[in-house]
Amino acid sequence: MDPVAFKYLGAGLACIGMGLAAMGVGNIFGNFLSGALRNPSAADSQFARAFIGAALAEGLGIFCLVVALVLLFT
Amino acid sequence: MDPVAFKYLGAGLACIGMGLAAMGVGNIFGNFLSGALRNPSAADSQFARAFIGAALAEGLGIFCLVVALVLLFT
Amino acid sequence: MDPVAFKYLGAGLACIGMGLAAMGVGNIFGNFLSGALRNPSAADSQFARAFIGAALAEGLGIFCLVVALVLLFT
Amino acid sequence: MDPVAFKYLGAGLACIGMGLAAMGVGNIFGNFLSGALRNPSAADSQFARAFIGAALAEGLGIFCLVVALVLLFT
Amino acid sequence: MDPVAFKYLGAGLACIGMGLAAMGVGNIFGNFLSGALRNPSAADSQFARAFIGAALAEGLGIFCLVVALVLLFT
Repeated sequence: MDPVAFKYLGAGLACIGMGLAAMGVGNIFGNFLSGALRNPSAADSQFARAFIGAALAEGLGIFCLVVALVLLFT
Repeated sequence: MDPVAFKYLGAGLACIGMGLAAMGVGNIFGNFLSGALRNPSAADSQFARAFIGAALAEGLGIFCLVVALVLLFT
Repeated sequence: MDPVAFKYLGAGLACIGMGLAAMGVGNIFGNFLSGALRNPSAADSQFARAFIGAALAEGLGIFCLVVALVLLFT
Repeated sequence: MDPVAFKYLGAGLACIGMGLAAMGVGNIFGNFLSGALRNPSAADSQFARAFIGAALAEGLGIFCLVVALVLLFT
Repeated sequence: MDPVAFKYLGAGLACIGMGLAAMGVGNIFGNFLSGALRNPSAADSQFARAFIGAALAEGLGIFCLVVALVLLFT
């Protein structure tokens, strides 16, 4: 069996990690919106922090994409 | 079958761990934002602690990336 | 098939454990922040305990990393 | 195929158990902190019990590590 | 292929069960602590019951360890 076959399998598995990272991002923005709609006057000052948290979680998802692209194109 | 084939599979599995770490980061920031919007005056003093926790969880995700890169490029 | 091939697979599986440990750390800090923002005056005295708990959960994640590194480099 | 190959696979699977035990520890300390910040005066008397519970869950994680080390080094 | 190889695989899979049992223990103690801190005066009388529940869940985790050790050493 050709080793290249397992690259395709690995790229598919990496996408599961990407989806789980999206759940983390969704959790952050879901809680942000839930709180922002209860107290809209404070939402502007906290949105930057929501973005920092989302960037950290999104970053781990982007790393998964990098691993998947390395598996596909190298 | 070439052992190299399983490197690709292992790198894909490591990405699932990365995604799970992103869910941990999302849980921390989600709870932080939910509380910060309920009590914005206390948010500044607790943001540093949110970052400490996120760094611990993010660190475990980065270790997964390290394992994936070691599998891909060595 | 070379036994070395399964080392790569095992290292990938160990990363899933690392990610799950990150979820545990996220749960601890998430609940700490949620409570600390509701009652900021008590946060300082409980932060040390949050760290003890996070160290226990992080320790299990580091053990996963040790297993992954033993699989990769021995 | 060499039976030794499956030792590496088993050690990787044992790490998933380690991560799940870390989630249990995280759940105990998360709930403890959430309650301790709501009622800080009772936290000192309940911390010992949180530790007993965490030790039980952590113990199962350490047993997973023992199984993984037995698989790796014997 | 040697049947012994699958003993190692089975021991690794048994560890996943151990980790899931640790999650059950964590759920019991997490909810106990959450309630004990809300009503500390009743905690002493209920702690024995929390222990009975934790012992039942821990017992199933120990059975997983027994299965893993039987697979490894017989």
